[in-house]
Amino acid sequence: KTYRIAVIPGDGIGKEVVPEGVRILESAAEKFGFRLDLQHHAFGSCDYYAEHGTMLPANWKELLTPADAIFFGAVGWPATVPDHVSLWGSLLQFRREFDQYVNLRPVRLMPGVPCPLAGREPGDIDFYVVRENTEGEYSSVGGTMYPGTEREIVIQETVMSRHGVDRILKFAFDLAQSRPKKHLTSATKSNGIAITMPYWDQRVEAMGERYPEVRRDKYHIDILTAHFVLNPDRFDVVVGSNLFGDILSDLGPACTGTIGIAPSANINPEGRFPSLFEPVHGSAPDIAGQGIANPVGQIWTAAMMLEHLGEVEAANAIVAAIETALREPASRTRDLKGTATTREAADAVLRAFAAA
Amino acid sequence: KTYRIAVIPGDGIGKEVVPEGVRILESAAEKFGFRLDLQHHAFGSCDYYAEHGTMLPANWKELLTPADAIFFGAVGWPATVPDHVSLWGSLLQFRREFDQYVNLRPVRLMPGVPCPLAGREPGDIDFYVVRENTEGEYSSVGGTMYPGTEREIVIQETVMSRHGVDRILKFAFDLAQSRPKKHLTSATKSNGIAITMPYWDQRVEAMGERYPEVRRDKYHIDILTAHFVLNPDRFDVVVGSNLFGDILSDLGPACTGTIGIAPSANINPEGRFPSLFEPVHGSAPDIAGQGIANPVGQIWTAAMMLEHLGEVEAANAIVAAIETALREPASRTRDLKGTATTREAADAVLRAFAAA
Ligand SMILES: CC(C)[C@H](C(=O)O)[C@@H](O)C(=O)O
Ligand SMILES: CC(C)[C@H](C(=O)O)[C@@H](O)C(=O)O
Repeated sequence: KTYRIAVIPGDGIGKEVVPEGVRILESAAEKFGFRLDLQHHAFGSCDYYAEHGTMLPANWKELLTPADAIFFGAVGWPATVPDHVSLWGSLLQFRREFDQYVNLRPVRLMPGVPCPLAGREPGDIDFYVVRENTEGEYSSVGGTMYPGTEREIVIQETVMSRHGVDRILKFAFDLAQSRPKKHLTSATKSNGIAITMPYWDQRVEAMGERYPEVRRDKYHIDILTAHFVLNPDRFDVVVGSNLFGDILSDLGPACTGTIGIAPSANINPEGRFPSLFEPVHGSAPDIAGQGIANPVGQIWTAAMMLEHLGEVEAANAIVAAIETALREPASRTRDLKGTATTREAADAVLRAFAAA
Repeated sequence: KTYRIAVIPGDGIGKEVVPEGVRILESAAEKFGFRLDLQHHAFGSCDYYAEHGTMLPANWKELLTPADAIFFGAVGWPATVPDHVSLWGSLLQFRREFDQYVNLRPVRLMPGVPCPLAGREPGDIDFYVVRENTEGEYSSVGGTMYPGTEREIVIQETVMSRHGVDRILKFAFDLAQSRPKKHLTSATKSNGIAITMPYWDQRVEAMGERYPEVRRDKYHIDILTAHFVLNPDRFDVVVGSNLFGDILSDLGPACTGTIGIAPSANINPEGRFPSLFEPVHGSAPDIAGQGIANPVGQIWTAAMMLEHLGEVEAANAIVAAIETALREPASRTRDLKGTATTREAADAVLRAFAAA
């Protein structure tokens, strides 16, 4: 079996950690008997923008559509290209045009990772954030009136469709249903955001009736972030709008020690378009170019991608190798209070993977 | 000197903690030689709604405008009145119609409060969240197309005005300027919310030029919530839009142990209208009626109100009494891993206040 993978390192530490992710993929292919057809792309980066004046070539869709999956690093280099230009010109465009409406992010306290929360042990925190990924607060509708004057008014619309809300809720309820705890938490803010959010609540209720076995609750986003810190063991599957899911899926990994190890999947569940896999951390300009970025996020991302492609055994073996490696202080990068370089940390995972 | 205070307990634990706040106010008046003219109001509660079909009487503005300040508990009882009805019909209306455009919330790790973050000590965490309180994501503009059908689309507008953005930034920069660290952090999300948030960033830049002594930085809201957990010592003054400020001002207090002790001020800095003071915690239906709510948030709120009224000495004495009381395990409520009742916890603060 051959998987065609589009590889887009992007910017900043993306360029440093993607090669480490590729190494584990190649090692997994050898060990588990599948083949990889890797297509490396320089577009989707601010370097590419500097040369071409756009983030993507005109034929990007033709180039990427045949891929079975996209293995992505990170994008954004605000010193040269404003974030909203680089992001809307690449990642956010992929999510939309490839209808990757599910953004799935595991939050798990791993052994060996120093937890910023007092008294929490591996096993205590283990849940998923399911984020709507194509509409909501990330709209491109709005504009400015009286620009540049004292009377300036800027408006941006949040757009939720029944189509868009119901399909992400269905995914989240299905996921909750498949897990032992069968517990779904909805992030809302219907007390303040009084038009779209009561609608979200209403669709959660309606969908919930089709899943009588799933216990559901909801919290306003403000107190929900508080519970992530105070009661992270309370969660199983947490579903949120584009913005709320974005916030919770950085906060969750932070509560388990670092966003440097967290993976994410941008999924088109119907498989009409390729899904995209990327670590949560972003391009991290502050540490880019030093070879000290944590490669575990990208490596765990490789595992998520393989799981999605059906290589479940390989995926599990990679996660197990991450756990083994993280137990060793010597294989931890700076964000984990270690001194390992990107390469050293990746080597440790590869060794554990080979040895298992 | 006599202060005219409108007292609105509202719903849930608001009704339990406001009387404790009033006791400390009365005790402060006696000790520091000022007089209180307290006007107690039953409106602004879901009980009132059940009787009258509205949250407020028609003449609420006439009733409240003469007050020097409003001492507020909490509002919301979703079992009988949907949150968006109760909130937009009371608290959010006060904020808007009394132009309380600053929502100010201290985040401080107090002695005796068990911190959920590992290894943090009192003194490590001490900053302010300054929240825009009258526009932004909390708009009332939008609606539904094709309601009740498969094609349903729901839209809500975020509205930012230069007037509204600049005045909250000015308040935040002034506050930063007045503090030893002179450091302002702006919460943004200009990479994803690509119309209103780049505008916010641009106004922060423009205002910043008028405050050359203030060091400023900005973080996207997702990673900013992560830093609240991982590096809370990094902050001094954090300014955010209505929604981002809302989130950060629950998350911040959670990182310092409990939202049960956090106070807040809804300020009309020009003094054209009364300002409103309320604890951060809300009506907490899950523990209401049991006499176990933490009264410290309401008591600290009383201190914030007195400070605003110019009774700085009395305010400081109350905060000092809170610190003394919290050092005693016996005066901690359940959210602080103690067993004190609301009354016992309040008694402890009152005793410390009297003794000082
Ligand atoms: C109750 C709710 C509408 C309110 C808000 O979001 O403003 C509350 O969370 C607050 O922070 O004061
Ligand atoms: C870079 C940014 C636009 C993006 C988002 O907000 O979606 C990122 O934070 C993420 O979570 O994937």
